[in-house]
Amino acid sequence: MIIKSKNITKIEHRVPCDERWARNKHKGGVIWFTGISASGKSTLALSLEKRLFDLGHQVFVLDGDNVRHGLNSDLGFSADDREENIRRIGEVAALFSEAGIIVVTAFISPYRRDRRLARDAAGENFHEIYLSADISKCEERDPKGLYAKARKGEIDDFTGISAPYEPPERAELAIDTGALDVEQSLEEIVEYFKRHFPI
Amino acid sequence: MIIKSKNITKIEHRVPCDERWARNKHKGGVIWFTGISASGKSTLALSLEKRLFDLGHQVFVLDGDNVRHGLNSDLGFSADDREENIRRIGEVAALFSEAGIIVVTAFISPYRRDRRLARDAAGENFHEIYLSADISKCEERDPKGLYAKARKGEIDDFTGISAPYEPPERAELAIDTGALDVEQSLEEIVEYFKRHFPI
Repeated sequence: MIIKSKNITKIEHRVPCDERWARNKHKGGVIWFTGISASGKSTLALSLEKRLFDLGHQVFVLDGDNVRHGLNSDLGFSADDREENIRRIGEVAALFSEAGIIVVTAFISPYRRDRRLARDAAGENFHEIYLSADISKCEERDPKGLYAKARKGEIDDFTGISAPYEPPERAELAIDTGALDVEQSLEEIVEYFKRHFPI
Repeated sequence: MIIKSKNITKIEHRVPCDERWARNKHKGGVIWFTGISASGKSTLALSLEKRLFDLGHQVFVLDGDNVRHGLNSDLGFSADDREENIRRIGEVAALFSEAGIIVVTAFISPYRRDRRLARDAAGENFHEIYLSADISKCEERDPKGLYAKARKGEIDDFTGISAPYEPPERAELAIDTGALDVEQSLEEIVEYFKRHFPI
């Protein structure tokens, strides 16, 4: 039994990161969108996913749709819960990146400290993309009617109105999604991707 | 602006699951190992990952190594925390499966209810594999000296000694890792995989 136990220890291993990258023909990494409501995060994340998938890549979006109903279904919108929400997303994104996947996250993530933690979790393969559309543009769009509700006081702590948004100081990429349309914004991101994700 | 807003809604989409599977040439899914300490979960999970990767598959292991230090670093070993630990792992595994990946989890996960939740999160692509080595065998191996410590009362709520283990009632596969060695066990799992993961 002692020998068997030694064997068990000996064969433990992990598939090395570079072998995953070679297989996928690109690095794994986190593309972290940040921006206020209606700045285009989900739209661009899902468009980017489709584009990168069509290029033959391993890519997956984390957004409210698949995170708030599952992993983070126990979290509300208190300050602590918002922080924990982003913390977990950062850690899960890091796991996807470790698996060799390009993971695209679409969350407001208004606080620098929270985004810093997500960056630390993923290490060097973290790419912060700031969607910098002006709040007046976002409020004009208001596709879900959230700004209207927030103005009426029906939503507490609404980012940009009754809660702060801390813009990134050194995002890897900033896109004014108030000035560029979806297709133009997507092109900029794909160009960025092509510079940073090849092996 | 109204037209732009409509456009934004219109181009939202997700890459369909079957396209991911076709790309990867296998289904995504969760291979959920359960069993007491030293039953071989981590060893088999890591060996399986290597084997499936070498077969050209997209595969990733979730285990204590990459979960307890990151995503679940806020959790201890209280009853509530153990439950939350498994809940989150189940949800993250479901996300990997949704991304078309084969995710292999290596956690004791002693409670049926917790495993049921993980199964529900992943849907039909959940495969519970029970590593059924007898506790006497596991205690003999005791590669980390945990049983010895638990017997001395140095570890509280140790599964199999001072905390219950609820064996699966209908695991997709059960392997007596007390009788079979690592290579034999791995073969059984790979055979199971080959029956259930082709598209």
